[in-house]
Amino acid sequence: MVGYGFMGAAHSQGWRVAPRFFDLPAQPEMSLLVGRRGGPVADAAAKWGWAETSTDWREAIRRDDIDVIDIVTPGDSHAAIAIAALEAGKHVLCEKPLANTVDEAAAMADAAASAAARGVYAMVGFTYRRVPAATYARELVTGGAIGEVRQVRAEYLQDWLVDENAPLAWRLQKEHAGSGALGDIGAHAIDLSQFITGQRLTGVSGIIDTVVKERPLLAEGSGLSGTAGTGFGTVTVDDVALFNGRFEDGALGSFVASRMSTGRKNALRIEVSGSRGAIAFDLEDMNALGFYDGTAPVDRQGFAKIIVTEAEHPYVASWWPAGHMLGYEHGFVHQAKDFIEAIATGTQPRPSFADGYQVQRVLGAVEQSSGANGVWTDIA
Amino acid sequence: MVGYGFMGAAHSQGWRVAPRFFDLPAQPEMSLLVGRRGGPVADAAAKWGWAETSTDWREAIRRDDIDVIDIVTPGDSHAAIAIAALEAGKHVLCEKPLANTVDEAAAMADAAASAAARGVYAMVGFTYRRVPAATYARELVTGGAIGEVRQVRAEYLQDWLVDENAPLAWRLQKEHAGSGALGDIGAHAIDLSQFITGQRLTGVSGIIDTVVKERPLLAEGSGLSGTAGTGFGTVTVDDVALFNGRFEDGALGSFVASRMSTGRKNALRIEVSGSRGAIAFDLEDMNALGFYDGTAPVDRQGFAKIIVTEAEHPYVASWWPAGHMLGYEHGFVHQAKDFIEAIATGTQPRPSFADGYQVQRVLGAVEQSSGANGVWTDIA
Amino acid sequence: MVGYGFMGAAHSQGWRVAPRFFDLPAQPEMSLLVGRRGGPVADAAAKWGWAETSTDWREAIRRDDIDVIDIVTPGDSHAAIAIAALEAGKHVLCEKPLANTVDEAAAMADAAASAAARGVYAMVGFTYRRVPAATYARELVTGGAIGEVRQVRAEYLQDWLVDENAPLAWRLQKEHAGSGALGDIGAHAIDLSQFITGQRLTGVSGIIDTVVKERPLLAEGSGLSGTAGTGFGTVTVDDVALFNGRFEDGALGSFVASRMSTGRKNALRIEVSGSRGAIAFDLEDMNALGFYDGTAPVDRQGFAKIIVTEAEHPYVASWWPAGHMLGYEHGFVHQAKDFIEAIATGTQPRPSFADGYQVQRVLGAVEQSSGANGVWTDIA
Amino acid sequence: MVGYGFMGAAHSQGWRVAPRFFDLPAQPEMSLLVGRRGGPVADAAAKWGWAETSTDWREAIRRDDIDVIDIVTPGDSHAAIAIAALEAGKHVLCEKPLANTVDEAAAMADAAASAAARGVYAMVGFTYRRVPAATYARELVTGGAIGEVRQVRAEYLQDWLVDENAPLAWRLQKEHAGSGALGDIGAHAIDLSQFITGQRLTGVSGIIDTVVKERPLLAEGSGLSGTAGTGFGTVTVDDVALFNGRFEDGALGSFVASRMSTGRKNALRIEVSGSRGAIAFDLEDMNALGFYDGTAPVDRQGFAKIIVTEAEHPYVASWWPAGHMLGYEHGFVHQAKDFIEAIATGTQPRPSFADGYQVQRVLGAVEQSSGANGVWTDIA
Repeated sequence: MVGYGFMGAAHSQGWRVAPRFFDLPAQPEMSLLVGRRGGPVADAAAKWGWAETSTDWREAIRRDDIDVIDIVTPGDSHAAIAIAALEAGKHVLCEKPLANTVDEAAAMADAAASAAARGVYAMVGFTYRRVPAATYARELVTGGAIGEVRQVRAEYLQDWLVDENAPLAWRLQKEHAGSGALGDIGAHAIDLSQFITGQRLTGVSGIIDTVVKERPLLAEGSGLSGTAGTGFGTVTVDDVALFNGRFEDGALGSFVASRMSTGRKNALRIEVSGSRGAIAFDLEDMNALGFYDGTAPVDRQGFAKIIVTEAEHPYVASWWPAGHMLGYEHGFVHQAKDFIEAIATGTQPRPSFADGYQVQRVLGAVEQSSGANGVWTDIA
Repeated sequence: MVGYGFMGAAHSQGWRVAPRFFDLPAQPEMSLLVGRRGGPVADAAAKWGWAETSTDWREAIRRDDIDVIDIVTPGDSHAAIAIAALEAGKHVLCEKPLANTVDEAAAMADAAASAAARGVYAMVGFTYRRVPAATYARELVTGGAIGEVRQVRAEYLQDWLVDENAPLAWRLQKEHAGSGALGDIGAHAIDLSQFITGQRLTGVSGIIDTVVKERPLLAEGSGLSGTAGTGFGTVTVDDVALFNGRFEDGALGSFVASRMSTGRKNALRIEVSGSRGAIAFDLEDMNALGFYDGTAPVDRQGFAKIIVTEAEHPYVASWWPAGHMLGYEHGFVHQAKDFIEAIATGTQPRPSFADGYQVQRVLGAVEQSSGANGVWTDIA
Repeated sequence: MVGYGFMGAAHSQGWRVAPRFFDLPAQPEMSLLVGRRGGPVADAAAKWGWAETSTDWREAIRRDDIDVIDIVTPGDSHAAIAIAALEAGKHVLCEKPLANTVDEAAAMADAAASAAARGVYAMVGFTYRRVPAATYARELVTGGAIGEVRQVRAEYLQDWLVDENAPLAWRLQKEHAGSGALGDIGAHAIDLSQFITGQRLTGVSGIIDTVVKERPLLAEGSGLSGTAGTGFGTVTVDDVALFNGRFEDGALGSFVASRMSTGRKNALRIEVSGSRGAIAFDLEDMNALGFYDGTAPVDRQGFAKIIVTEAEHPYVASWWPAGHMLGYEHGFVHQAKDFIEAIATGTQPRPSFADGYQVQRVLGAVEQSSGANGVWTDIA
Repeated sequence: MVGYGFMGAAHSQGWRVAPRFFDLPAQPEMSLLVGRRGGPVADAAAKWGWAETSTDWREAIRRDDIDVIDIVTPGDSHAAIAIAALEAGKHVLCEKPLANTVDEAAAMADAAASAAARGVYAMVGFTYRRVPAATYARELVTGGAIGEVRQVRAEYLQDWLVDENAPLAWRLQKEHAGSGALGDIGAHAIDLSQFITGQRLTGVSGIIDTVVKERPLLAEGSGLSGTAGTGFGTVTVDDVALFNGRFEDGALGSFVASRMSTGRKNALRIEVSGSRGAIAFDLEDMNALGFYDGTAPVDRQGFAKIIVTEAEHPYVASWWPAGHMLGYEHGFVHQAKDFIEAIATGTQPRPSFADGYQVQRVLGAVEQSSGANGVWTDIA
């Protein structure tokens, strides 16, 4: 695994726990953790249970005993590592967003396509697809339970940047993060709405904005949870992104990605309205799914709050009895399981790099539209 | 009162009940009900308690014993009646939207300004401002309880048109209704978000769409609840409208107005995120208001569900003890009360025709943007 | 109508509004309002639209032009007025609880039975039966939608007495109110749970308590909303009542009636669990009903939040379009309608005095059990 | 660890994960898994990562390299194993309920007290105390945030036995399980309500019942999730238990433990009403806590839904950023952490066997009351 931030902890938990609850065709070994600074990476390896460490990701690629490269670094390094790994015959799991630019993402998708032809696979980590309620939502929608998709509402709301004194972390710098709320959390809303509907966006119109334009420089820490130091710097990514889009079968969707939604902590919400019903997902209530059955007798229609913890629900049979809740990192366990199964059986894991590249094109189109006064922009 | 559809029942209830719970400076008399067809209007008058009827609205304007004209007809007749009434020295309450076109609305606002100079007042019926939770939301926001407004999310979701066999009522015909979901319910989202924030929209970018383009002709009935007959006709108004806008102090707002939101019955929702807190209003839970106090200790922060039924809340002291809920038509009672008080004290009731005209300009700008590929459009 | 407190306003609204929305076989006339003190009763009559007033309820009974006596006084005067009225051939609507003692209630039920034989009817005002969601819950349960009743949970939670400085109103004095939380709100929980299940309680075991035992004397006002004066007095009724009971087909039910439930304003909640489903009613969310359909596919089961505002739901067709909410006093409108229909058609309105007497016996059994160390007590 | 049912998986996850997120003073080693049948126990050990297996729990006690015995067997074997382990100088973690009878629990508490004097500690596994929202609720209540406790409502609702064809698992047989809904889930409601209030119950009055009295014999499987075979057997434990109790400072509490609550999957709910506020916990919404601050301005009071995922909340700082949810097994991770810390620092972990014994006495008093017609029963 290359990288050891917050995502590193989550991925480590995925590899560690997956074999304890699922019957896997191959057993993962947590062999090598790579990071730029030797001390911290050693601490992380000890903490999370990685056998060895390195400060050079190329070492991981050179080693014959390593089959999989898991990339959890900031987006600006994804392309170099992933492409090198794929060319070296390593399967790759790469955190989202796939890259910081559409061009890098395109190169990665190309590399993945070439590798796949050689039986080497790449996958991008939109783990929220693997929250059981989200997976189940897709099953319902693509299985016809709500009829034709008529309208989509998607939003990812956080309040992490409402505080003007939250420091200028790497996620707020375009050169490292590529994008702000749009790319970091809006990407999830795009991927998940496309995943659940089974349809891709064909065009968008949007506006992105930076509400708090200057922030204290970062003293220490990383991600979005560091400590403020002295001096101020300019925020170079968006903290609010609003856009509307059209899905391939014609339905319109509205999207909000914001880190200015005071009081909302992690509200990734997807509502899909269909001709015969609707589903409503909310990551803040992640063990439940709203389902409206428009074919029930009129007097009995209402959004049912399905607690998605029955053995009949995706992934759940391997966990606990009904009513026992899963949490955030379970999605990473499911990701590890699905990845291992795909690799072991020689099939393409999803979401593929091509999927990630498509999301990147949507993000790019939103930025382009925002830069062109909101004009409708087709997704190339 | 001119008109006797669904809104006629609501306004009648307002006039009837207001004096029974509020101490008014003048007592309303329900004297004359006007409608085009004599039989139905007589039935409605008997039902709702109007003393006399007429089939000519000009009679109401000619009569000296009538001081107030209440207009609840479809939007295409608002301008003629309201302007004539104001010129004749009658105070006017006119249902929203103010008119079907921006030009008509402009003429009405002009007439209202002239009349106000003579002590004759006009008001437009955005009654949702008078749902106590909405009024209270405005008090909180304009009183500084959430700090500076950072972001607004507004949506008005219904599912009245999901059924493809819902007939082609007048509300689905541009010549009568002027607009569809945008003008009928989107107008409420615009007015209410501006009312609560105390800020006007300065520009928008949007797209409107008609998901179901052909519908059965109407056999009988009106509004959106008629019976389907034989033959089909073309829907000439939108059933989904999505737009983003900027408020005058800079915050972005996202807007959804839809009659394709399966399972959502009357979900007018406004969430205002501020630098120190947030409010969340939902008309489907109209006796409650969500309030997030960002100044509380971090571990105690959360959206409080305030049940807005205390004597300290707007309008409530005149009704029931705490915890006893108000319903839809109470807003019309409050509207009648506020209108009567304003007239009796010679002050301009709000929302004024100028307010209604401004909403109409926003609606017009959304339509213009939608027609121009979503390009950002300033509100004139 | 005899009495003019908070209940008087609600009943007046019922008589006034019912004919405006429902087609009634007879039209109510609000002729005479009776109260002990002439000035206040005159004010109330003017406010609520009663034609005349009197300070002697016997006048109402003597007058030939009066057909119905509506009793909204404190419980200690119910028996005398109701029995006299019935004997004089007046139909009677009497607020709940029927009386302050089981003996008085028995006498009233006897009088009502005699009167009914002469075509004169009496009804007790458990209006919450007529909240559409509650009426609909009964339809579902007694119609078999949840199978056999397995368990009932009923609670009526308020926080009106949490404040130790809330004054010693008549509702806190046994000689006037008969009972406290048990009789005032617990009675609703008993009646509604029996109404929804269609089953009566056969025995109970309970404990009642008075958490705040001394309160300031009342300076002015009445009900529970008066102003505290000087000096303290002893609270002689309960403010918390807990009991368990068995319904006639064997299911157990748990009951909580409390005015010490901090933050709960008017939470009358009934959940009925059946062999094939469940319903959940909450008066604080009175336009919705929770319905769990245990016959749906396992993966789709969940409590549906049915918004009970469709024309298919009880009482609703006469009101507003779907999604437009009703409030507290609508139950009184429905009560007026149902009462008038029953009288006009010569049928016994429900809940009858016999029903009210049965609830009184349950209340009596709870008090008896509480006085006997919680021992199980059959309902006579 | 002795035993390898559903609880074995949860405890294993606790031991495995705790050192990966928390800095522990000692590192757990998962050395020996004990079960009666060699094959299944070997499978479980491989699955969950235990180094060795045995079919005799006495082996675990004999081995010098084992310091801690974790007991997750059915309740009828707890006493023998725990007492032997403590006498052999092993620290003990024992699943709840402590034992099947009050006498066994007493003996275990005695053994634990003796052992503690020798620096050997025992703890009982009421893990729900370690759900962050529950721990935080205790902090609020015992820290005075809601004032004096006035009333408690506690319920644990499941629907696992609504289906009449659910088979006769060991949990439904008194000789193995000791008790049914009362002991299995009611015990949690008792412990958690005492934990949050910081007060013990002093007396109870209750009734327990078995709604479905005959069930199919178990073909295979265990717990409550086995497969029905042929033939029927008698259920010898309760499936519904209702009781009321008094806490030591005088507040009354109502308790419901039921496996007949159709549609409720795992609804352990505790609401504590105080003189200045209230808290409301619901295990089905386990990352949130309801908090009502009765000291806020009246118009701003409402139950706040605190999402208990801030670094300021108990246990959370070691996990994910704000808004990232924890699940069921995290309580077992926290339990492992707290147990290890207590052992390493030579302090008594809580809940102690004395705590477990007290819960057992409450359970015993409820059963005694139920057998004595509901009469109030002091807790010895």
